[in-house]
Amino acid sequence: MEKQQIGNNFFIPMPVVLVGTQVKGKANFMTVGWCARANANPPMILCGIGNHHYTPKGIMETKTFSVNIPSSGLLEKTDYCGLVSGDTADKSQVFDVFYGSLKTAPMIKECPVSLECRLVQTVPLPTNSLYIGEIAGAYADGRVIKDNKPDFSAIDPLFLTMPDNRYWTLGKYAGDAWSAGKKLVQQPQTST
Amino acid sequence: MEKQQIGNNFFIPMPVVLVGTQVKGKANFMTVGWCARANANPPMILCGIGNHHYTPKGIMETKTFSVNIPSSGLLEKTDYCGLVSGDTADKSQVFDVFYGSLKTAPMIKECPVSLECRLVQTVPLPTNSLYIGEIAGAYADGRVIKDNKPDFSAIDPLFLTMPDNRYWTLGKYAGDAWSAGKKLVQQPQTST
Repeated sequence: MEKQQIGNNFFIPMPVVLVGTQVKGKANFMTVGWCARANANPPMILCGIGNHHYTPKGIMETKTFSVNIPSSGLLEKTDYCGLVSGDTADKSQVFDVFYGSLKTAPMIKECPVSLECRLVQTVPLPTNSLYIGEIAGAYADGRVIKDNKPDFSAIDPLFLTMPDNRYWTLGKYAGDAWSAGKKLVQQPQTST
Repeated sequence: MEKQQIGNNFFIPMPVVLVGTQVKGKANFMTVGWCARANANPPMILCGIGNHHYTPKGIMETKTFSVNIPSSGLLEKTDYCGLVSGDTADKSQVFDVFYGSLKTAPMIKECPVSLECRLVQTVPLPTNSLYIGEIAGAYADGRVIKDNKPDFSAIDPLFLTMPDNRYWTLGKYAGDAWSAGKKLVQQPQTST
């Protein structure tokens, strides 16, 4: 297959999360697609957020934030939190809010999983910044825990692709990690 | 729904990528789930990689790396690249390799999309480091480009969940981003 060059501004498929902050004493939530784990031990997670956004104000004010995983049933409210800025709209009443040990990282009751994070490091980049937080608490609905593990079919997370700007559900189980490739170990590898 | 506290070491659903590097003149590929966009303009992408891994040697040696998106049909080879280290196994022959303008970031012909990246910044964390690269070139198979945009159904990417250690396909179209929540704009928001 011949390769063609496409625009450099390519976006890999993104897990959709809602980042919760407290700004001037009020809860605010922002939809974020640039989110990944950052460190294994202690557990850290990062969010990449545009420098002009309202959410960074809350992160810097309290040095805490939350990461909430919305299920597909929350699609409209999730999209709403990406459409309007906390600078002009009060998003504190969109969800039922609860707090954990950090007290200043509002979490979303309707989301099956929520993480509260303590800011560890900020990495400023030209148009965006990375906010790296240590996961200080993790909360889940009992119904999404199976055999003591998060059940991702029950969590029913959303993904975002760009620039087609589409949300997607999690698809089918496709194989076991650290297992499916075992048959290739020890075999001479040749390109096909 | 009552919340229960779960272990802090929670992993959000992760897009699966293969990170390509050249180590001592030889192509090497590593499966990575900690990958997200980092900056909008110029376009940057980041990968979080354990500090003991072989791939960072190649990134630091050439100051370049590639990010390749495997389709679900490449699941076995993708998993293989996460099972064995370049330190003990030669992974240079697992895929057909091509190079772009950077010359030192090996990309995978079998992957529908590949990005070549110039290292911009390294963020060392306790057990892992973030490698932030500017996307210097993006290459795709013509069959996955539709109306000049990447068609993610055709790309057929994989996701990884942990600690159940499962690969998943992309699911169904669930709605339009920056659109599905418009009906909530201007309405008073109340928690439900």
